[in-house]
Amino acid sequence: MSRDIDFLHPYFLGPNAENAQVFEELLVEFVRDHAYWRRNFHPEDGPSVPASAPNKDAYADFVARMKTELYALSSELKRAVPFFHPRYIGHMTADLLLPGLIARLVTTLYNPNNVSEEGAPVTLEKELEAGRQLCGMVGYPTNETADVCAWGHLTSGGTVANYEALWNFRAVKFYGVALQAAAATLDFDPPAVGPAAKPLSAYSQWQLVNLSLAEMIELRRAVASAFQEDRGPRAFPQFAAAVAAERIETLGNAGFFLKHRDLKAPRVLVSASTHYSWEKGMKVLGLGTANLIKVDVDGHMRLDPARLTGCLTDSFEAEIPVLAVVGVLGTTEFGTIDPIHEILDLRTRWREHGCDYGVHVDAAWGGYLATLFRNPDRTLRERSEMRKHYKHFPSPAVHSSFQALSEVDSITVDPHKMGYVPYSAGAFLARDRRVVDFVTQKAAYVFDLGGSEAAVPIGEKLHNLGQYILEGSKPGAAAASVYVTHKVLPLHREGFGRLLAQTIKACESFYEQILELADRVKHKVRVVMPFEPDTNLVCVAFNPADNTSLAAMNRYSRALFEHMKVDPLQPLQVKSFIASYTSLLCDTLAEDQHARILDELGIDHATFTSLPEPSKGEADHVFILRHTLMNPWLLSEREDGRNYIDRYVRYLEELIVRTASEPVPATTE
Amino acid sequence: MSRDIDFLHPYFLGPNAENAQVFEELLVEFVRDHAYWRRNFHPEDGPSVPASAPNKDAYADFVARMKTELYALSSELKRAVPFFHPRYIGHMTADLLLPGLIARLVTTLYNPNNVSEEGAPVTLEKELEAGRQLCGMVGYPTNETADVCAWGHLTSGGTVANYEALWNFRAVKFYGVALQAAAATLDFDPPAVGPAAKPLSAYSQWQLVNLSLAEMIELRRAVASAFQEDRGPRAFPQFAAAVAAERIETLGNAGFFLKHRDLKAPRVLVSASTHYSWEKGMKVLGLGTANLIKVDVDGHMRLDPARLTGCLTDSFEAEIPVLAVVGVLGTTEFGTIDPIHEILDLRTRWREHGCDYGVHVDAAWGGYLATLFRNPDRTLRERSEMRKHYKHFPSPAVHSSFQALSEVDSITVDPHKMGYVPYSAGAFLARDRRVVDFVTQKAAYVFDLGGSEAAVPIGEKLHNLGQYILEGSKPGAAAASVYVTHKVLPLHREGFGRLLAQTIKACESFYEQILELADRVKHKVRVVMPFEPDTNLVCVAFNPADNTSLAAMNRYSRALFEHMKVDPLQPLQVKSFIASYTSLLCDTLAEDQHARILDELGIDHATFTSLPEPSKGEADHVFILRHTLMNPWLLSEREDGRNYIDRYVRYLEELIVRTASEPVPATTE
Repeated sequence: MSRDIDFLHPYFLGPNAENAQVFEELLVEFVRDHAYWRRNFHPEDGPSVPASAPNKDAYADFVARMKTELYALSSELKRAVPFFHPRYIGHMTADLLLPGLIARLVTTLYNPNNVSEEGAPVTLEKELEAGRQLCGMVGYPTNETADVCAWGHLTSGGTVANYEALWNFRAVKFYGVALQAAAATLDFDPPAVGPAAKPLSAYSQWQLVNLSLAEMIELRRAVASAFQEDRGPRAFPQFAAAVAAERIETLGNAGFFLKHRDLKAPRVLVSASTHYSWEKGMKVLGLGTANLIKVDVDGHMRLDPARLTGCLTDSFEAEIPVLAVVGVLGTTEFGTIDPIHEILDLRTRWREHGCDYGVHVDAAWGGYLATLFRNPDRTLRERSEMRKHYKHFPSPAVHSSFQALSEVDSITVDPHKMGYVPYSAGAFLARDRRVVDFVTQKAAYVFDLGGSEAAVPIGEKLHNLGQYILEGSKPGAAAASVYVTHKVLPLHREGFGRLLAQTIKACESFYEQILELADRVKHKVRVVMPFEPDTNLVCVAFNPADNTSLAAMNRYSRALFEHMKVDPLQPLQVKSFIASYTSLLCDTLAEDQHARILDELGIDHATFTSLPEPSKGEADHVFILRHTLMNPWLLSEREDGRNYIDRYVRYLEELIVRTASEPVPATTE
Repeated sequence: MSRDIDFLHPYFLGPNAENAQVFEELLVEFVRDHAYWRRNFHPEDGPSVPASAPNKDAYADFVARMKTELYALSSELKRAVPFFHPRYIGHMTADLLLPGLIARLVTTLYNPNNVSEEGAPVTLEKELEAGRQLCGMVGYPTNETADVCAWGHLTSGGTVANYEALWNFRAVKFYGVALQAAAATLDFDPPAVGPAAKPLSAYSQWQLVNLSLAEMIELRRAVASAFQEDRGPRAFPQFAAAVAAERIETLGNAGFFLKHRDLKAPRVLVSASTHYSWEKGMKVLGLGTANLIKVDVDGHMRLDPARLTGCLTDSFEAEIPVLAVVGVLGTTEFGTIDPIHEILDLRTRWREHGCDYGVHVDAAWGGYLATLFRNPDRTLRERSEMRKHYKHFPSPAVHSSFQALSEVDSITVDPHKMGYVPYSAGAFLARDRRVVDFVTQKAAYVFDLGGSEAAVPIGEKLHNLGQYILEGSKPGAAAASVYVTHKVLPLHREGFGRLLAQTIKACESFYEQILELADRVKHKVRVVMPFEPDTNLVCVAFNPADNTSLAAMNRYSRALFEHMKVDPLQPLQVKSFIASYTSLLCDTLAEDQHARILDELGIDHATFTSLPEPSKGEADHVFILRHTLMNPWLLSEREDGRNYIDRYVRYLEELIVRTASEPVPATTE
């Protein structure tokens, strides 16, 4: 086993900073390279700081003050969480890949601002290239000369990328209604436009909000051309202004729906296991959490297609537009994979009935796992071929989900999670970059005003990045970091995939060992994995053998977790391992799933309730330990022949055995 | 003059990397410190990468591949924009302060995630402390034991901070209406609550949307207490759920205003000179750009209070809620300062008529200039005392604006602009941190579920940062960078202020020299500064002496700018100076301002038009050169006794004289 991971040796700084020498050498080289670069810009000017400056008291005083603060910081950072170490299996972070780390540090010296090319002639192109790399990873079309070409860019994180998905969908969804309303104000009605080749006025609003992006682009083009043909090219600004005035972005959600009273406010459908950023997004975008429909999950903690069908039927029968269905590729809490292929299949079927929705995949966590599924020639790997390398992975459902990824409209990926690059680096990918024409901004001080929209090719327009994204100023250093990482470890099975394969193997080993542990300690504590891991994250619940009260079980589990949590008041050295926790909430878990999990744990169902009285042993959640198995060294064998998974499970067993005999802590939650 | 800036010598790496030695020494020391820190976490484990690893071919191959890509990056970065150099006077960026740069680089090695304390036991506290430092800079109350205490946190940039302001205001503004609606559904009507001490049902919706934050907090508390008294403490969750169900965040903007038809969708009032992120924000938040009222500016490019009064009267007479009035402290395009004191005075007066609005200040650019106005003991400096140090600065209006800063509800500041720290580091500050209770999120996997809202003190709650902000995962390295910078250079006149005073002095020198230049070249080219600089940014327009066509003037100015713009296809060494440009748009400039500026330039008013025909010499904008004078070395004298301002103005003069005799380029825009 150990031999298998030799290839990883140079990838990271390492748990003991084993690669400190190569890291320092390269860093210092590039720091000097930067310093000498500065001397090449108008060397005739001579220095602004004289060589004698360091001899002055004021200079020395400043340096001393700076040192004092930096020493204090460096000293306090000794309490930082040791993410880099295989004993850390808590949140979604680990050591940093050296190429990306060095690229980030070096580029920070140049401090480019990727909001536009004027501030980042080098790194803006790197950002768009990193976007193309990620688009290739998920199977998106990346041929710049084709009609449909994907694009991607970085965000400060997955949360903002998720907001951006909603913002993009909304801009397209209600464009048709605005177009129709604008044409009416201009007393213009093109005779045969859009997919039904009929007059624009003849489309119902319901039809207009159920056009796909491609259809909307086509309709827009047809109407604009017809208008120019009718009124002359000089009339175009009048047309553009009329449409702009009718758009939901102009009127606001309230104004738009108050004007179009027959149209209902849109819904977004997500898996019940989704990240809370979707609720935040619904609030921020003014869409409302009441319109975020949480679709129940199945026994694998994956969105249940049957229930999604039900939700879609309910919505479409009531003529409620569905802005998007969001599938999660690697839920934050459980690492589970929603059935993306089924979400797409349902869309195909609904389209036949004139009902459409956008499909977004929140792959903040699982996105990079797509590298396991892709060959260097960009073809997809067969499941049968992949199965040879793993005990369980990938299940047919998981394989189908990754296969389907190339057909969804947009994707969130977080390079600062399973891309092993420093914070902050999220990414938003869109399958069809023409969507940006629906969200463009104008800005006098950064973007040149020459030329009309149509005259500039889209690839060139994207160099004014700030026009098309949610954020403004942004670090070019993040782009360099992600780009270089992907260049050194290409996004396929033989590049990045080799690293991630280790995390899946670690997970499979963990899973099997927990099953064995459960068997060994069953007379003392019930150890339950509420669902099989789809990826590299494993949740485990614990209940003392004879306990039936959920609150008591949670108290026991919290006490267990106390041993593995980051405590800012203690030296980190006192921890043997560091894990994280999550909770299954009464309100978000489907009833049959409640029942199954509580039964496995031996908990009285009645103690799982929305409004619990802890004193009666009730609780509204099931507290579970959560293990993120992304550290590259988990399978690295120590001298005793045991790797970190072996050691953690043994540690857990000792802890369980010891604590099971202690009285359950009685503190109220 | 040169002597004055000696104190700056150790602050930056320097235009010639003069401080490369101290920078490298410290960086290497902290890199090693980090490496050795790693070896203290379970040293008994031994290394995961054997000492023999570097001898293997695969190891060497990886290192070679990494080097190849990093060399390629470092080589491409030679085309980066030389922000660090005093010959760069373009966008809002310059060299980086050494303490912040080193802190950023060093902390990146630890890679903390400030979304919650579990991922950042050290840097999360630094972020909240950096927030406190900035709150102190603007004069906000920071006593943790007082009722009203400010808080601040970092964002990926000013754009997101601006969104956050709108998100906070909305959450408070419509809370009262939700509270009233919820009480009605619960068949509950407390008898004497709120500022009017009357039954909740007796408040009109107009009254409820015109409560201040403090009044809303008080009303909320009173209603919740009355409910618990009436129905018992166990009924609280029912109450909370009923209120949540009625909130605008739940119903969405459309649902909320469709339900409350007598209530109108809110407006946001901003200066016409504002940054385009406000339009983006109105779109993103679903508020609609039609509800963004751009208040005309006066001859100083500052929001015109008389016109604001008009806009407010219009809104309030029509019973349209005003979500916020946004003042800009240092506009992105012109560096001008809106009259914050007048915005606040107007609010005081309107409050007497039962009309209220939030006040946000977008100080992304100008925020740090507050350090010039503050003494080390946190008192404000008198204008008369400040005036001794400058030729013009600060004007009475500017002084009053900074003085008023402490009374506004929230502020955006960008440390990655005039804070001289690397991207990305924006900040959002709120005067009363209790606002966070209106925007809190829940998340099962990061935030502990124990305890009820009231039980946890607010200062502690903020350690679950992700619950209260727009973003999710975020770099602790940014927090360390900002915090350490402020520790080394405290945010008052004797700390950070000393540095920024140089930028104001550079600006005053620039201004006077441009006036002299204008006089010297007036027979060839009209050189006009359309408005006096309020801070350290100067815009200059150019028109060949006999030209009256705006399009021709713009062509001439663009040709001038070609000499000073970043061209990714040329080595940067060919540029003598690098500036930026902006445009005054026909649509956003008040008519009297049009007229004045065009007259000064000798342009025929008729050629300034919304729908121009360039072939007829028309244009919809005035193209102007924009100079950001934030580089610390602008006043550094070279051997010939001239500083960089002198040199730039001479360069400009040569350019003007040379190009004025050339035919104006005839290319269409």
